[in-house]
Amino acid sequence: MTLPAQHPLVDGRTSASALVTAYSGTRPDRQPVWFMRQAGRSLPEYRASRAGVAMLDSCLDPELASEITLQPVRRHDVDAAIFFSDIVVPLRLVGVDVDIKPGVGPVFGTPVRTLDDVQRLRDLGPLDDERLAPVAAGVARTVAALGSTPLIGFAGAPFTLAAYLVEGGPSRDHLAARRLMHADPAAWDALMAWTAEVSGAFLRAQVRAGASAAQLFDSWAGALSKADYVRGCAPASSQVLAGVRALGVPVVHFGVGTGELLVAMRDAGADVVGVDYRVPLDEASARLGGATPLQGNVDPALLGAPWPVLEAHVRDILERGRSAPSHVLNLGHGVPPETDPDVLTRLVALAHEL
Amino acid sequence: MTLPAQHPLVDGRTSASALVTAYSGTRPDRQPVWFMRQAGRSLPEYRASRAGVAMLDSCLDPELASEITLQPVRRHDVDAAIFFSDIVVPLRLVGVDVDIKPGVGPVFGTPVRTLDDVQRLRDLGPLDDERLAPVAAGVARTVAALGSTPLIGFAGAPFTLAAYLVEGGPSRDHLAARRLMHADPAAWDALMAWTAEVSGAFLRAQVRAGASAAQLFDSWAGALSKADYVRGCAPASSQVLAGVRALGVPVVHFGVGTGELLVAMRDAGADVVGVDYRVPLDEASARLGGATPLQGNVDPALLGAPWPVLEAHVRDILERGRSAPSHVLNLGHGVPPETDPDVLTRLVALAHEL
Repeated sequence: MTLPAQHPLVDGRTSASALVTAYSGTRPDRQPVWFMRQAGRSLPEYRASRAGVAMLDSCLDPELASEITLQPVRRHDVDAAIFFSDIVVPLRLVGVDVDIKPGVGPVFGTPVRTLDDVQRLRDLGPLDDERLAPVAAGVARTVAALGSTPLIGFAGAPFTLAAYLVEGGPSRDHLAARRLMHADPAAWDALMAWTAEVSGAFLRAQVRAGASAAQLFDSWAGALSKADYVRGCAPASSQVLAGVRALGVPVVHFGVGTGELLVAMRDAGADVVGVDYRVPLDEASARLGGATPLQGNVDPALLGAPWPVLEAHVRDILERGRSAPSHVLNLGHGVPPETDPDVLTRLVALAHEL
Repeated sequence: MTLPAQHPLVDGRTSASALVTAYSGTRPDRQPVWFMRQAGRSLPEYRASRAGVAMLDSCLDPELASEITLQPVRRHDVDAAIFFSDIVVPLRLVGVDVDIKPGVGPVFGTPVRTLDDVQRLRDLGPLDDERLAPVAAGVARTVAALGSTPLIGFAGAPFTLAAYLVEGGPSRDHLAARRLMHADPAAWDALMAWTAEVSGAFLRAQVRAGASAAQLFDSWAGALSKADYVRGCAPASSQVLAGVRALGVPVVHFGVGTGELLVAMRDAGADVVGVDYRVPLDEASARLGGATPLQGNVDPALLGAPWPVLEAHVRDILERGRSAPSHVLNLGHGVPPETDPDVLTRLVALAHEL
């Protein structure tokens, strides 16, 4: 693995970029924009690169992960790359029996339900630099190609990792995970401590290898009451966020259906709060006291609407985003696979010309 | 079909019940409690009754639907029965090609995506009394057996029906439905007008056959922004709610993940607002101005926690529920299939003794 000689924010490579400026709370000259899941199935070049390669194998092939990460930057002129990976990659790297089943999602050999199960996870050993080598190599390669365009590092939050591990796969209500939180707090706390370590190590490795910012995805936090989130999940997320911020990069915290948790997610120690499509940005900013940079919140459903409808929606979002100190335009959830990529390119151009 | 000689609220059969009293905004002497999906897979007698019978067939067999509806009343001493049915039953009754696939949910022969598709739904003809006969017969039979225990009628809200029809099955984000709302408002409005008619006819038939109250389930409303809900969905729900209230019974309006929509759902014309497990009842009541009867909101995940944890949770909910004019104890979502039914019985006894 080749580490950059200096950190990109220290050496100035990306520190003046629109993205890093906005993430740092200052409104840049150019409206920054990128898309969650911009590297993915909406792009024909992605489908070609992935042909015959299993999802997790593609994440762990530095050359392929880097190529996929760069594709949307080349095509759309977005203001950031986000490292192509998956929430369960750090679990696979420590040796958890997990695979991604197309059309289903992550599926685990054995669900984690007891303190002994958590101990078995811990027995797998730490997510050390050796295990993280393919990720660091992929990031370093990507950063070298990106030049002054920042790369965002990526990890699933401890609760989302825990929810997958307890359920043994995707779930609508995350009942088993939420039950464990209340039924066996010792096992739950041990599991969250472990997922926090793994999530944190994964994210820090990406930053140390050259990512200029990081985003912590708590995909399933919206399944939680605020009380459960604050008591059972936020402390572990705080640990991850603090570890990354200590490296000197800004961190975004995002969840789906988390309108009621925005303040708690900011207070967990995030610089920027991602807002899904449900809550208007001016309302989100008001909840956050008007002092927090925001990211979001184009409704992915509107990517398939006629252009004038989408354009009006995006203009409204940019207008509402002015109530925050700064705003990075993004979707309120990932790019749907059936999206016409030309619509995304046009959306970037619109944001940049406004 | 045998209709009751008089409406249960007019003839006084259930008007003094704890449930109807609470739904009407007065705190009764006994704390009313029932459970969403109380008639279902958590009960061995249900699994025995359903053996070899497809879900929709069981809903449309008056004798079987009635037996299943009565099972949890006999076993748990709950304060209400809810008619055993499914959200897609009215669709099946008008001739839509839909089936319920075990482990998946409703699956449709053809998704509804255009104005022509909606016209084809309308060409199926209205959900008239003849088509509703098995439902009315099942309700009448149940009401006769229930005596002074009220029966709650049940229907999916227009948006939830529309979301199923557009997606052609279950979906996490309801992207296709939400896209149609913005991409083709004429088709969307026509679809919502049709689902409102069908949902309303289904619910009114249950009330006319003797149900003492009704609950409109908008299972997927939580996928919507407030603006989309208010503009694109609430008018259709209002039409359903008004049609049922005109028959003189109280109506509950419930959705999952709808903490941000509570006021809009009440203002659509509901007497009672159901609250899922995410928002504490005192906060829900404050959002509603303290003047709306509430239903909810035990976290189904806690049904599998040790009894002292569940008991503390239920006591806390009952305490917070005192901030509303009245409160019907319920879950914040349906009974999970793996629930120990004895826990539900114990929970009813706890509510009644407090």
